[in-house]
Amino acid sequence: MRGLFITFEGPDASGKTTQIDILKKRLENSGMDPLVTREPGGTFVGEKIREILLDKNNAGITPVAEMLLYAASRAQHVSEVIKPALESGRTVISDRFYDSSEAYQGYGRGLGKMVWRVNEPAVDGIWPDLTIMLMADPDDVKGRRADSEKDRMDSESLAFQQRVKKGFEAVAERDSDRILRIDAGKSIEEIADEIAAAVERLAGRKI
Amino acid sequence: MRGLFITFEGPDASGKTTQIDILKKRLENSGMDPLVTREPGGTFVGEKIREILLDKNNAGITPVAEMLLYAASRAQHVSEVIKPALESGRTVISDRFYDSSEAYQGYGRGLGKMVWRVNEPAVDGIWPDLTIMLMADPDDVKGRRADSEKDRMDSESLAFQQRVKKGFEAVAERDSDRILRIDAGKSIEEIADEIAAAVERLAGRKI
Repeated sequence: MRGLFITFEGPDASGKTTQIDILKKRLENSGMDPLVTREPGGTFVGEKIREILLDKNNAGITPVAEMLLYAASRAQHVSEVIKPALESGRTVISDRFYDSSEAYQGYGRGLGKMVWRVNEPAVDGIWPDLTIMLMADPDDVKGRRADSEKDRMDSESLAFQQRVKKGFEAVAERDSDRILRIDAGKSIEEIADEIAAAVERLAGRKI
Repeated sequence: MRGLFITFEGPDASGKTTQIDILKKRLENSGMDPLVTREPGGTFVGEKIREILLDKNNAGITPVAEMLLYAASRAQHVSEVIKPALESGRTVISDRFYDSSEAYQGYGRGLGKMVWRVNEPAVDGIWPDLTIMLMADPDDVKGRRADSEKDRMDSESLAFQQRVKKGFEAVAERDSDRILRIDAGKSIEEIADEIAAAVERLAGRKI
C-alpha cells in the first residue's frame, strides 16, 4: 500500500520544524517509520541547489530563475526520495512542497500561473494527502531569526512576506479539503494535538 | 538600435569555441564590440548551476531536474546579460542557447514538448537572429576529449549523443531561415568564411 504524503507549509519561523519533530516521534512511537525530508534540498543535487537559492550573495537571482531552481530541486526530490518512499509504503513528511512555490514565487514574486506550468513536470503526479499550514503573521515572526542567520529569502522585504502570507491563505482556502490551516500563535501542544488528530483521521488509526 | 544575437549550436567538440574566437576577432577588427558568453553559465549564479550540471558526481540527476536547471541558468543569462547587451546595441554571441535544450533534453532525454513549456519564461521573448549549427558526427568526435576531461554530459552513451545529433538536425530543418547548418568536417578557414558571410548578410555590412 502506498504511504501517506504529509507536507508542512507556511511562512518562515512559524514553527514547522518543531511540529515535524513532534509528529515524527508520535508516528515512530506508534510503530511507523516516517521519512522526514525538506525543500529545497532533500537530495545530494537538491542541497546544492538549496545553497544557491539561500546564499545571500545571490541577491541578483531573477524571479524566473528562482522559480526554475526550486522546481529543479523538487523534480529531483520527487523522483529520488518521495516517490520511492511512498511506493515502498512509508509515510513521507516534507518540510515545504509545491504550495510554497505558489506562495513565494506565484504571489510573492508575482509569477502567477507560470509557477504551476513549470512545476507540473517536477511534481510528476505526486500530491500531498494532507498539508499542515502553519500561519504566522510576518510582523510577528520577522524578529525571530537574528540578522546574521537570515538567508536570501528571509532578507526579503516585509511587503514581500505579506504577499507570501496572502498566497498561503489563498491556497489554503482553495484546497481546504487537503490543507489544515492552523494559527501558529497557539501553544505547541495545542498545535501538535490538532496535527495528530488530522493524521489519525487520514491514517484511520491512533498515533 | 538593438544589437544582433548570434548563437552557436551543435554537438560537443564540433569546433564551436574556435569559430566563436575567429568571429569575435573579425567583428572587433571591423570596429564592433561583441559580447561573447555561454550556456550553461554566463552569470555568477549561472556558473554555479553549470557546476552542478557538469559535475560527474551528479550522475543521478533526473532528466526533468536537468531540464529545469538549464532553463534556470538561461533565465538568469537572458535577464542579466543578453537582454541588456542587446538593448545597448551590442552584438551578443552565445556558445549554446535554447536549441541545445531541445536537442539534449527534448531529443536526447526524450522530454519532447515539455522543454519549450519550461523554457518559454526563461527565454522571455529573446530569440537569435542567426544560429550557426556546427554538425559533427558523435562517432568522429567522441575521441577528441580525454576521459579525464569528460564532464557529465560528455560521459553519456553514444546512443544518447546520436539522439542529440538527430535533434539538432530536426531543429535546423525546421528553423532553416534562422539556422545555418555547417558540416564540422570542413576546414577551419572554410567554416570561418561561411560564418562571416552569413553575419555580413545579417548585419548588412562587411566584417
